[in-house]
Amino acid sequence: MITVLRLGHRAGRDPRISTHCALVARAFGATSLIYTGEHDIGLEKSVRSIVQNWGGPFVIEHESSWRSLIKDFPGKSVHLTMYGLPIQEKIREIRKSKDILVIIGGQKVPADVYGMSDFNIGVTSQPHSEVAALAVFLHELQLGKELEKTFENRAIGIIPQRSGKRTVKYK
Amino acid sequence: MITVLRLGHRAGRDPRISTHCALVARAFGATSLIYTGEHDIGLEKSVRSIVQNWGGPFVIEHESSWRSLIKDFPGKSVHLTMYGLPIQEKIREIRKSKDILVIIGGQKVPADVYGMSDFNIGVTSQPHSEVAALAVFLHELQLGKELEKTFENRAIGIIPQRSGKRTVKYK
Repeated sequence: MITVLRLGHRAGRDPRISTHCALVARAFGATSLIYTGEHDIGLEKSVRSIVQNWGGPFVIEHESSWRSLIKDFPGKSVHLTMYGLPIQEKIREIRKSKDILVIIGGQKVPADVYGMSDFNIGVTSQPHSEVAALAVFLHELQLGKELEKTFENRAIGIIPQRSGKRTVKYK
Repeated sequence: MITVLRLGHRAGRDPRISTHCALVARAFGATSLIYTGEHDIGLEKSVRSIVQNWGGPFVIEHESSWRSLIKDFPGKSVHLTMYGLPIQEKIREIRKSKDILVIIGGQKVPADVYGMSDFNIGVTSQPHSEVAALAVFLHELQLGKELEKTFENRAIGIIPQRSGKRTVKYK
């Protein structure tokens, strides 16, 4: 089971970035995204609408007491940060855990997150994007098998095409 | 050589998403990002500031005549779209090309992009994020070797840590 914890959402500034984080979490095999910071009904609505159309299971929830969430997590917590150890050196060890909490921050991550996490992992040591770091981490964690994932209770799906678009309705 | 073409940038709506696309392009081994849509000096400035601090080579440029850019590209063009063929089925074939133009769109991609591109490739057939699709595609294209990439003329870099932050100044 993979849970993603997105820290410090700002409704005014991050709406699309947080939506991308949630959709990447779902598409790449996590079963939930928990976010902290501002409670954002619009964000939740747009993610739930995707789940309703494209399937799940996937839930998005707001949480205030994220420190206890990290501390009490019954598995390993992995904080993605460009300051952390290279993913290519640690991913085999991380794969041994059955339950993973992937922590992604915004611009300002509280300093104690580094100490509370079981792993601090860099997907490159370069500044780029929490959306990209999350996707590549989940892809490596599952050895690419998440690309074959099918979703339950979907209303719509895609039949891959060499060119053009083909969707199919299930409901 | 890997070039990324970002279609249809909207300065008001996409500033952070386009910045993330550019930084992912750089961090994951592309040497340039060309964007179409609105010319956005702020976007260019923030990307160039990253290159100045963290190294290159990497350039960002605005371009209006993107159709000729795709048509005249002296290599293979790969349009990332959730409607395309699965990356895991086509990536070996794509890796054979020396020069790659990776095309990523926003919400509305002109229909002729599908026909003009040598490949239409889905990184999952699910809705998620062009930032994530770009990162996972570049990661797969280079078999993860981009994670070891070093940058030239950098003023600052990171020494990976198990916990905490450690940067080093080169200039």
